[in-house]
Amino acid sequence: MSELRHRRGEGDGNDKVETAGESDHVDVDSEEEKVLEEKYVDELAKTLPQGTDKTPEILDSALSGLSSRWRNWVIRGIFTWLMIGAFCLLIYGGPLALMITVLCVQVKCFEEIINIGYAVYRVHGLPWFRSLSWYFLLTSNYFFYGENLIDYFGVVINRTDYLHFLVTYHRFISFSLYCVGFVWFVLSLVKRYYMRQFSLFAWTHVALLIVVTQSYLIIQNIFEGLIWFIVPVSMIICNDVMAYVFGFFFGKTPLIKLSPKKTWEGFIGGGFSTVIFGLVLSYLMSQYPYLVCPIEYSESLGRMTMDCEPSSLFRLQEYTPPHFLQPLMKLSGREKFNMYPFMIHSLALSIFSSVIGPFGGFFASGFKRAFKIKDFGDVIPGHGGIMDRFDCQFLMATFVNVYITSFIRTATPQKLLQQVYNLKPEQQLQLFYALKESLENRNILNMVP
Amino acid sequence: MSELRHRRGEGDGNDKVETAGESDHVDVDSEEEKVLEEKYVDELAKTLPQGTDKTPEILDSALSGLSSRWRNWVIRGIFTWLMIGAFCLLIYGGPLALMITVLCVQVKCFEEIINIGYAVYRVHGLPWFRSLSWYFLLTSNYFFYGENLIDYFGVVINRTDYLHFLVTYHRFISFSLYCVGFVWFVLSLVKRYYMRQFSLFAWTHVALLIVVTQSYLIIQNIFEGLIWFIVPVSMIICNDVMAYVFGFFFGKTPLIKLSPKKTWEGFIGGGFSTVIFGLVLSYLMSQYPYLVCPIEYSESLGRMTMDCEPSSLFRLQEYTPPHFLQPLMKLSGREKFNMYPFMIHSLALSIFSSVIGPFGGFFASGFKRAFKIKDFGDVIPGHGGIMDRFDCQFLMATFVNVYITSFIRTATPQKLLQQVYNLKPEQQLQLFYALKESLENRNILNMVP
Repeated sequence: MSELRHRRGEGDGNDKVETAGESDHVDVDSEEEKVLEEKYVDELAKTLPQGTDKTPEILDSALSGLSSRWRNWVIRGIFTWLMIGAFCLLIYGGPLALMITVLCVQVKCFEEIINIGYAVYRVHGLPWFRSLSWYFLLTSNYFFYGENLIDYFGVVINRTDYLHFLVTYHRFISFSLYCVGFVWFVLSLVKRYYMRQFSLFAWTHVALLIVVTQSYLIIQNIFEGLIWFIVPVSMIICNDVMAYVFGFFFGKTPLIKLSPKKTWEGFIGGGFSTVIFGLVLSYLMSQYPYLVCPIEYSESLGRMTMDCEPSSLFRLQEYTPPHFLQPLMKLSGREKFNMYPFMIHSLALSIFSSVIGPFGGFFASGFKRAFKIKDFGDVIPGHGGIMDRFDCQFLMATFVNVYITSFIRTATPQKLLQQVYNLKPEQQLQLFYALKESLENRNILNMVP
Repeated sequence: MSELRHRRGEGDGNDKVETAGESDHVDVDSEEEKVLEEKYVDELAKTLPQGTDKTPEILDSALSGLSSRWRNWVIRGIFTWLMIGAFCLLIYGGPLALMITVLCVQVKCFEEIINIGYAVYRVHGLPWFRSLSWYFLLTSNYFFYGENLIDYFGVVINRTDYLHFLVTYHRFISFSLYCVGFVWFVLSLVKRYYMRQFSLFAWTHVALLIVVTQSYLIIQNIFEGLIWFIVPVSMIICNDVMAYVFGFFFGKTPLIKLSPKKTWEGFIGGGFSTVIFGLVLSYLMSQYPYLVCPIEYSESLGRMTMDCEPSSLFRLQEYTPPHFLQPLMKLSGREKFNMYPFMIHSLALSIFSSVIGPFGGFFASGFKRAFKIKDFGDVIPGHGGIMDRFDCQFLMATFVNVYITSFIRTATPQKLLQQVYNLKPEQQLQLFYALKESLENRNILNMVP
């Protein structure tokens, strides 16, 4: 706590200067209001989880000789490697293991965010608040996971009569479930707590927006091929770690007021490391069909498969380097070089993850500061809560998803054909003749396929 | 104000009784905290817009002889009819006029919600807050309206080279725009205001969730055929009006603590009126292709069209009434009767609009009470703000949209064919041969089309 208070003290002098922007409303807060607010926020800080100091005892005693700065370094390092190891294990476990992990992480993040909401709005006495927020988590997961499964495995699911019903009326069922929650909320309103109940309702929905919708996008990325999940996640980790390392050793120039520990040196060093790391990782990973192939249902095998003829993104191509790199190439005695086209996309991803990605972290640390908490939770020694480690991952996942839909996935004949097979036979036939006529009219049918 | 204060006084005695639910946290708010909160909320009420008393002067003097209860009745009545008239004019104006109206209503609703947020979080001095919330409104509208236009008119838009770019990279552009707003928000954070800035950020996003996403669904409904827009909107209006009328004349039994003016008599009377009104309206409207046909791009005409062969939903069919209605039918001397299948769907819609619909209103009135405001705005004399009239419309629109996707719209050969035409010619050919082979294998190709 003392550290936080200290930080607050530092900048109080120049607050007025920063209130630029809409200059017609400069500052009309009365002194009294300010005091009230400070008091409230300080009260709040006492009730919120403060985490992070929960180090396993054995580790604690083994490190007792180190200064606190180095001690933190070591603990953080150990648990970083532990997490990286767990991550590799999960990849080995395949898409199902990853899907389940995403779900667990999501639930944990939701819990951390919502717990802060509980503390902020002093929920003691609010009727049904806990059940309601978990109910909304459940329904929104039902909706989003269902949408994903239907999107990718609709044909398979439709074969089972019972599931067919769930697929056809999926949105209706989800919406009905949501309506139950909505009515429940309205009925649970109690005059004395109106304001806090509505605030918590909004808080829950923002948490859902951040956590559930984005983990839905993560699952979509996994289905597109494990590489679309592993590379971005690793990039964010690499950027986090390397920014920390560069900042630790070379950090001098503060980057942003919000996070006094972040430095320009860390930002830039982390960025360069991430770009290089991303290129190497993409090169290595592009070689394995297991990582590169989308997860699809194979009609001939009658099961899910991750075997495929890798798309052109993952086949080596010859590139002529741009002019300014030619001298460098001459040194190596070659004029052209081979690489996977995916590596170009990896470059885009790594630039995003090191330029915009950190803002996810700034946002989270601003949020923590707003409510005067140090970490979101205390699950990982040296790191804080799950949300502390995944703050940037969510933004990144959305970027990857948007990137794929915009630049990678174009409507393929295969996908469309799947949809055609979902039609009734006579409709399929109708479509066939209409297509035939159109192709004939445009003189395409005479082309060699 | 006095009315509101009076209401607050009424129920304070039995607050404790209502805090059921999670019984392990009964009530630990200190007296002091309670007083602080009361004071804050009362202060708030002074700064918030209180609206509704803005009656045109001519009307005001003409009605000076009436008691305030009847005066309110007359003013409300006059403006109800004015609004219904405007609504009819807009329908005559066609889908484009309606789309623009939806956009305007949406912007106005957003403004009303966000203004309350400004007052609640005393935004004076917060940097950039106004520009930021409007920027987010702009980007989310760009995203959602774009998605709609691409979905329905992709083939047409793709013909123009310049627009083709906007279509292909639509999500990427929208996401980039959002990221700009996100980074802007993070950079605008000022230590002293963290908590309020984050609260306002959340407030803005909840407003977007309520207003923008749902108006996106309304536009989709309009594209499915004007009837899917007019009937639900009219139902909500009818339910509102008739519940008010029944409540005014027969209301005795209070329905819900949240809205002391709502009565069971109004709820039930409004419900029955809505069901009957819905059936009659659907019967009348099903006869006009202009109201019934989806808006589509016609290849042969080279323009948008609302002409079509009405789908089976809008063609008279013969029904045998269920057993318990047979005696009634015998009176009329017939055993069967004709009606449009759409009327059955209309029944589902009217039941939703009169059972769940009002909860949208309760939610809004709870929200208003939470922040001690009487109305969202003062645009419509006797009615308050736009948001006061549209609170139930949003929930209803979502229901209609979900209803259409679940029960009405199945993948049609036409829609799929549109997507096929978006492929490259050689891909179209590839799909054609694959489909041909599959149809031959399943012995479907030999069927008569």
